[in-house]
Formats: sequence, structure tokens, C-alpha cells
Amino acid sequence: MGFEEMWRDLAPIGRSAASGGYNRSPWASAESELRGWFAEECGARGLTVETDGIGNQVAWWAPESATGKGVLTGSHLDSVLDGGAYDGPLGVVSALAAVDTMRGRGFEPGRPIGIGVFVEEEGSRFGRACLGSRLVTGATTWNDARELRDRDGVFLADAVEAAGLDPSAGLLSLEDVGTFVELHVEQGRDLVDRDVAVGLASEIWPHGRWRFDFAGQANHAGTTRMEDRHDPMLTYAMTALAANKQARLAGQRATFGRISVEPNGTNAVSSLVTAWLDARASSDDALAEMVDAVGRQAQDRAGRDGTSLTVTAESVSGSVAFDADLAARLAGLGDWPVIPTQAGHDAGILSDAGIPTAMVFVRNPTGVSHSPDEHAETADCLAGVEALADVLEELAR
Amino acid sequence: MGFEEMWRDLAPIGRSAASGGYNRSPWASAESELRGWFAEECGARGLTVETDGIGNQVAWWAPESATGKGVLTGSHLDSVLDGGAYDGPLGVVSALAAVDTMRGRGFEPGRPIGIGVFVEEEGSRFGRACLGSRLVTGATTWNDARELRDRDGVFLADAVEAAGLDPSAGLLSLEDVGTFVELHVEQGRDLVDRDVAVGLASEIWPHGRWRFDFAGQANHAGTTRMEDRHDPMLTYAMTALAANKQARLAGQRATFGRISVEPNGTNAVSSLVTAWLDARASSDDALAEMVDAVGRQAQDRAGRDGTSLTVTAESVSGSVAFDADLAARLAGLGDWPVIPTQAGHDAGILSDAGIPTAMVFVRNPTGVSHSPDEHAETADCLAGVEALADVLEELAR
Repeated sequence: MGFEEMWRDLAPIGRSAASGGYNRSPWASAESELRGWFAEECGARGLTVETDGIGNQVAWWAPESATGKGVLTGSHLDSVLDGGAYDGPLGVVSALAAVDTMRGRGFEPGRPIGIGVFVEEEGSRFGRACLGSRLVTGATTWNDARELRDRDGVFLADAVEAAGLDPSAGLLSLEDVGTFVELHVEQGRDLVDRDVAVGLASEIWPHGRWRFDFAGQANHAGTTRMEDRHDPMLTYAMTALAANKQARLAGQRATFGRISVEPNGTNAVSSLVTAWLDARASSDDALAEMVDAVGRQAQDRAGRDGTSLTVTAESVSGSVAFDADLAARLAGLGDWPVIPTQAGHDAGILSDAGIPTAMVFVRNPTGVSHSPDEHAETADCLAGVEALADVLEELAR
Repeated sequence: MGFEEMWRDLAPIGRSAASGGYNRSPWASAESELRGWFAEECGARGLTVETDGIGNQVAWWAPESATGKGVLTGSHLDSVLDGGAYDGPLGVVSALAAVDTMRGRGFEPGRPIGIGVFVEEEGSRFGRACLGSRLVTGATTWNDARELRDRDGVFLADAVEAAGLDPSAGLLSLEDVGTFVELHVEQGRDLVDRDVAVGLASEIWPHGRWRFDFAGQANHAGTTRMEDRHDPMLTYAMTALAANKQARLAGQRATFGRISVEPNGTNAVSSLVTAWLDARASSDDALAEMVDAVGRQAQDRAGRDGTSLTVTAESVSGSVAFDADLAARLAGLGDWPVIPTQAGHDAGILSDAGIPTAMVFVRNPTGVSHSPDEHAETADCLAGVEALADVLEELAR
């Protein structure tokens, strides 16, 4: 099937009728369906899929002409909560379509070409972004990860088993991967500003997630005098505004998008507000400085509110500089710009693990992502497939 | 069974081992158990319980000596989320104990004395405080109420039926109720400051719940420039701080204790933040003025954030002045102070319905309520039982 038919097949899976957004949570039914779809598409191309113990998948096109370490491409199929259609799946569908394109051109790979799918890239369920690729590269160990819990208190290990997988069956090996290339929809408007359909990545900004636990004292919302309260909602509210201001002034990014409140009752002062700071900056120092500044302001306010604050770093990724020579060489194929991104990707994890890695971005007309409104024009997606085929031919010649 | 034994029996029902607080949500298992417990305690006293179609209960002590309209006492058994042991149950247990006390004294009632339990007083599940008493008095109609949904989207009518009740069986009649007396733990520290164990209520402050829907645009928390965002979390945060400031300056109360966020993902700018304002003031005008001021500041900020705001009044109760002559007459029995409260009660609903109503408060040493830390000393509770028996004798002579 061609790009557009594959895209049409994926469209209804995990889609919310209400918002039009996607809920493709890892180790749940929509994701199982996507795994099955991927195996079927690979099978239709004569490729055999290997699925590891936690659901990462890879299929190799390795004709007799192909020797040595391979070129891996692909992305992920999971989504954020109520996310868009493109973030992840575009890279997987484009990889399959690029194989068709190369075959149509009569290309005979001199190296094996693999298509991979990593699980829980978004961290939407267990809070750790790029969990599948982190486990595969060893950046996170299974012993650490298995104890993670989702919002319902389910352990990762139990969720994986409930999805019909067997973690003891082991993880994908990247031993035979010489290069990794991930195609991804752009999540900003750099390519729009440059008026081009395709670009390559130079670097990923350092970024991370910090859990802020604001603790106070539950009390009656009517009878408790304002001056007798220890209300952690106020400490949180001021912190959310302070984080926004810090990021705005410094040209960085800081967001509180997730919050959990105890007891979360209309007529009760809260006892506990837990909120997650997503912060990103152009350098490791700038990131640390911004998170420190937000934490300091939050602590000051907690002192005034009679509440207390604990800040826990849940996952922090240093800056990733993709292989500059590789990016320059590939950019030459199509006169594509080389641009930075503020979004984390499995490509960053593989690059950190020492695998020469490149990313291909496809233009996003509005820049909107992690939203039902995320979009890319079909013509740009097809240009992305051509570009990916060119890149893979260059690397697997 | 005496007061302390009844109290011990109730202690484990719906109690969270983690926090020590109570989750006695209406039309759920803990509450069914409480309804059964109440029927059993009444039965042990030779009183027959009538349960209406939605779970309100009443048992009448009406010996041959008793004629004319009755004196109803009682309270509620449901709790807020992670609430205290006393708010509600103290009034029910004290009512049962007061009957024992009156019988021990050899009192022969000249009027029937009823013990009542109203459902969903806290509004913790369906968002409407005093729902049981509102339905019984007609302040809310069943046709309006049946369409209410809980946080899981369950309709009230379905929840009531799932609890084994039949709404078509009709509601308690208050036709034969001449006076209502509700005993309740105090939820502030007025009695502590006055150094007395028992007081009577003069009035309930006007109060209400307003739902604030802040709508923005979901987007990627990393790649979206701060200046391109429409983040409703910021509008909410500023509004929570503004509400607190307004209430503090005016000596009133305003609280945001409940919030719901879409999509509530760490790496996504929120698309929708819904938060509930609980506001109370010493006069109807002061309440309207405060809520207006908060709404105006929120709208201004929404304009700056590129978000939009809708404010919906979910339930608003005007000020309740309890029957002043009745309060003065009863206060004379024990030289008890007559004090206002900022908390809503079923007593306010019955008073609004034209039933002469009084409230007896029992001292709360910390003033903390709607919290696992809510407490009253046993000696004060027993003083409350004596006071309630005195009041009931006075009214049912």
C-alpha cells in the first residue's frame, strides 16, 4: 500500500470522536492494533518483524547484496493524550513508503535497512519519555523501569505483560545498527519561515521533567479564615506564573501542563498539589539555571503560604548534538536546512548511545503539535518520503 | 449502644488507611453500609426507619403521648473526599444518643421526635451541596437533578438505582415536621475562642460554587514559543491568586480546591482547564461583588493570554437567617452563645423551606474540617448530646 492508503488505514485507530485527537497509550488496545498493523505492512513487503519483550519492533530489508552494519530508520506509534496523527506515525509510515520508493527505483542496498518502532516515546503513561529506546540502549535499566507506575497505579511490568508481551524475552539489540535516521513532523515553524518542505536536525535542546509536590493542610473552604490556611494551590499558582515568566524572559520554554490535586473537592482547601514542570533551554547551564530559579521562587512562596515543597527530577536529558558531518553530508543531497529542535526524540537517545544519527523534519504549516490540530500537507509528507529514500540510499549504498 | 460505642462502630467505614480520612461518597458501598448501620441502631431502639426513593432516611419516636407536628433532628452520613469523621455523622450519632438520654431521664414526648439522615449533603459526587434536602423541600426538582453526572459521567438517576434504590418510590415528606434541629461539629474556632463546648447558630453566610472553564489551545510544551501559546493554565493560575486576594482583602472566603485539566500531559500545553470557585461572604451583595471581581480579573487575563473563559454558577445559596426567637429561647437553656457559620447545611435548606430551624454546634479544638485532621473531644461530644436532649425536650414537651 502507498503512503496515502497507509495513512488512511491508521486514521481511525485510537481516535477520539469528540476532539479528533489520538489516545494511543502504550500497552493498551489502540497500540496493540498499531503493532499488528505494522507487522502486516512489513509482511506485505516480505519483511519479517521482530518484536522484543516490551513491544519494540524492527523489520530488516537485507537482501544478499547487503552486508555489514545496517541503517535503521523509523519512529514511534504512541501518542500523547489527545495528541495529533503525525507525531511518530509519520516516521513509521514514511519508512515503509521509502522502502517502496527505493525498490521502485531499482535500488539494491549494500547494507541492511531496518524499520524500527519504539514504545512509549511520549512518556504519556509512565512519565518517562523515550522509554523504549532508553531501555534498548541501556540508558534506563529494566530493574529501574519495572517499578514505574501509571496514573492508575499499575506497574510497568504488569502493563507490559497484560499487553501479551514477556519482558523476560529480552530487548532489541542495536549491535548491528551503524546509523539511525528518524523522520518526524516538525513541531515548530522553522521550515514554514524558511519556505521549504524538508529539513535536517542539528541538535535537541536539553530538557526534562520535574515533579513539584506542594503540601499544605486540607480544610473547610467556607469556615477557614483566609489567614489560617495552608493552601498549596496558591503556591502552585504562583509557581506556574513564575515558570512562564522565567522562560519568556530568557527565550526558553517552561510549562505546567499536568496537575493532580488532593482531595480535589470544591469545598475543601487542598492538602496536596502535584504538578509537573516541563522545561527546555538552549544549553544545559541555561536549563539548570531556569529550573533553579523557578524552584527558588516556589520555595519562597511556600514559606509565605505555610506550605512545603519538594522538587524531584523525573527525567532530564542533556543537549544532544547530532553528528554534524553526517547532517552536512545528507543536507547536501537536497539543499536542506539544518535546524535545532526543542522536542525530545528516540533519535536523541540513540545518538547519546554513540550511534551516528540524523533526523529528517517535514514542514508543519501551523507549528502546532501534541494537539488534535497537528497537521502536515500530503505534498510535504510525500516530499519527506522522497527525501528519506534519498538519505537511506546514500547511507546504505 | 452508647455514643462512644456507636462512634467506634462507624470509625472504620469508608476510612482510607493511607490518610486516615473518609471517602463516604453517596450511592456507593461505604454509604450503603452506613444506611444499614443507621437502620440497625434505630431498630435497636424500637424505631422503624423509612428510606425514600433516593436514600434519605427518617425514624420517628412517636409514643401515644405524642401528637401534632414533630421535631426532626439529624444530619448526614456522607463525607467530602478524604474528609473527617465528625462532619455529618456527629449529628446522627448524637441524635440517637439524645433519644437514649431522654428515655433515661424518663421524658415522655408530647410531640413525635424524628431522626433524619439526608443524602449527598457535601455535593462531593454530583457537585450540588445538600442535594437530598434540596430534593425533599423542592428547592431542586428531580427532573433537574436526574441529569447531573458524576466525575465518571454516571447520571444521578443511574447511580441511585445502582445503589438498590428506586427514585420513582418518591421522597420523604416534611409535612409533619414542625421544627428541625441539626447538631454539627463546628468548622471554625469561634467556640474555642469563647471557651465553651456548645453553641447555637444565628445564620449561614451566603455561598456558592461557580465553574470556570478556561479554554486555550493544546500544543507542544517544547517546541511552541512562549509568545505563540494560548495556555489556559496561566489564566487559571492568575485567577486562583486573584480570588484569594479578593477574599483576604474583604474578610470573605474564596477557594479553588478542585481542578480538571485537558489533556493533562506533562509535555503538552493545556487545551482546557476547568476549576471550581467556592465563594462565601457575609452578605448576598458582598458575595456577588466578590465573584464579579474575580470573574472580571479572569476575563482581563484571558484577553492577555489569548484564552477564553466561561463562568457558570452551579449552585448559589442566599444567606440563611435561622429563626432568631427560637435560637434565643434555646440558647437560654444552657447559656449558649449564638454564632454565625460560613458552612452550608441541610438545616439551611429546611429553614429556607419555611421550617423553623435551629443548629447546635460542638466545639472543634483546631477549627480544622473537611480534612482527616477534623476532631472534637469526646467530653465535648457528650456535652453536645446533653444539649441536644435538652433542646429536643424543650421543643417536644
